[in-house]
Amino acid sequence: MTGIGPEICAKVLAEGSLKEEARIVVVGDVRVLQLGCTDAGVELAWRRYEKISDIDWSSDDVPIIDLGNIDPATIERGAMSPESGRLSGDTLKTMIDLALAGELDGICFAPLNKGALHRGGWKYHDEHQMFAALTQHVGFFGEMNAIKEFATFRVTSHVSLREAIDLVTPERITSAVRLANATLKANGIVAPRLAVAALNPHNGEGGLFGDEEIRIIRPTVERLHAEGIDCAGPISSDVIFLKAMKQEYDGVVMMYHDQGQIATKLLGFNRGVTVTAGLKVVFATPAHGTAFDIVGQGQANPGGLEHALRIAARMASARLH
Amino acid sequence: MTGIGPEICAKVLAEGSLKEEARIVVVGDVRVLQLGCTDAGVELAWRRYEKISDIDWSSDDVPIIDLGNIDPATIERGAMSPESGRLSGDTLKTMIDLALAGELDGICFAPLNKGALHRGGWKYHDEHQMFAALTQHVGFFGEMNAIKEFATFRVTSHVSLREAIDLVTPERITSAVRLANATLKANGIVAPRLAVAALNPHNGEGGLFGDEEIRIIRPTVERLHAEGIDCAGPISSDVIFLKAMKQEYDGVVMMYHDQGQIATKLLGFNRGVTVTAGLKVVFATPAHGTAFDIVGQGQANPGGLEHALRIAARMASARLH
Repeated sequence: MTGIGPEICAKVLAEGSLKEEARIVVVGDVRVLQLGCTDAGVELAWRRYEKISDIDWSSDDVPIIDLGNIDPATIERGAMSPESGRLSGDTLKTMIDLALAGELDGICFAPLNKGALHRGGWKYHDEHQMFAALTQHVGFFGEMNAIKEFATFRVTSHVSLREAIDLVTPERITSAVRLANATLKANGIVAPRLAVAALNPHNGEGGLFGDEEIRIIRPTVERLHAEGIDCAGPISSDVIFLKAMKQEYDGVVMMYHDQGQIATKLLGFNRGVTVTAGLKVVFATPAHGTAFDIVGQGQANPGGLEHALRIAARMASARLH
Repeated sequence: MTGIGPEICAKVLAEGSLKEEARIVVVGDVRVLQLGCTDAGVELAWRRYEKISDIDWSSDDVPIIDLGNIDPATIERGAMSPESGRLSGDTLKTMIDLALAGELDGICFAPLNKGALHRGGWKYHDEHQMFAALTQHVGFFGEMNAIKEFATFRVTSHVSLREAIDLVTPERITSAVRLANATLKANGIVAPRLAVAALNPHNGEGGLFGDEEIRIIRPTVERLHAEGIDCAGPISSDVIFLKAMKQEYDGVVMMYHDQGQIATKLLGFNRGVTVTAGLKVVFATPAHGTAFDIVGQGQANPGGLEHALRIAARMASARLH
């Protein structure tokens, strides 16, 4: 609640443009949502429910499970707050428990401050690790970062570059490509076209600048292709995003964090969406941050959150059918 | 001569827009220049000279040292040719010898095909290594890749990513930052503002994702800053180019090849210029390729070559004064 979360939530709910695609319930403190309405200058009719199963979906009022846990008067806005981080983590955990109990089909959350979450006691490398732990996930999972033109997936993520190189194995590449394929299918792409990035400059230049492409990446891509996944690669990292921008691919599987992040941030990733892919529960969030500099001014653009809600609804729906 | 080189040279020379900034002599085969004029649909008055010292600079005719070494009738165009690569290398070597003898102040060349050069017998990792060898260079040198908004410099370049990490040392960072500073000064920027990239994701996240930032990069940047170089860093690679695009920096020093190449290629590097920085001789070339697909159609844009000539002239002039 220290950032623009409340006001973008209020805007999206007031617009009501997602009514055909999802049944949205707010889980949080009603006072925070009220604050968001004031910030955004919108009026919202809501109704409190004790349990999700009680919700009257025929009503136009926005249903809210009021956790009553965050009093906005006690927390400074526009600044990192460990207390707010702790409470955001609590709220996420409540939603995860509801999802695991089958009461929610997916979770969409406003931007959170990773530092606040960590200092608030949720000691994970990032929120994706937290979600994996809280859903008792075993095995591979990872971020999908989606912009308009394409989405990226990661063989490795929040580890040192040296460790990332050691983690470029046939097993992890296979898991990442399969996850990309399944996630894009769940997003409504019938036959996703995937590109797999090289690790070394110039695609290893025929072995002159490293041999991971020859030893590891190419044989793995060929094996996955033979399995029926439409994947190409390895492709030089300074070429792969140019091709993806021309819509030659739906998904890019990258070997290390910055490979994709350099590209997507330059390409307007801030208007994109981040999904935690591969877990039991669907998680989606706008890729932009908490925007402390414009909090409470009603300027914040709700487009990213709306996009995240659409993706969460589509992926949750794919699981149900 | 298999690519668009001849026609963009003919266009730039026919426009004559660089007359105030440089005295340009063509070194090559006059038949290739004639071919370029035909392709480009321009008329050019030229005059052959035996020696550069013979040139009458008061004449409006374009001076050419006719090497008589390339007969266009014998080489297929629009395709990679080892023979053309061999002859391109010969021509470059002739120019380098002239520069080392003090007869040329800088060398600007049209796009070359790296594969053709290599197969033509010039067995170097890239043309920069070739230039370093032919100028008997000892010590650090490297590519500058310049786009309109900023230029990049490299601590490491055409090596495997694993080797690049091993080469991220205080000595190489120091050399690269000093080279960036000197090269941008030679380009007319009085006090270049430099940014130094991190190696690991999220700038190492305080040591959680690798410690090269703490052990190596930050202390080196601080030492260089204390020396009087305006440098900042380490800065996360997915943030540094966003800042550079906002003109917060004139130069970005990157740790490994793809860090900068992913960014600059997405940002229109093809309209940029590549300089081999740190050698006795100034070398500049457009960043785009030989464009085999449009050879001989007169469509090729000479803007990159013109930009490269301006940079070469400016840097050569800075050395003379």
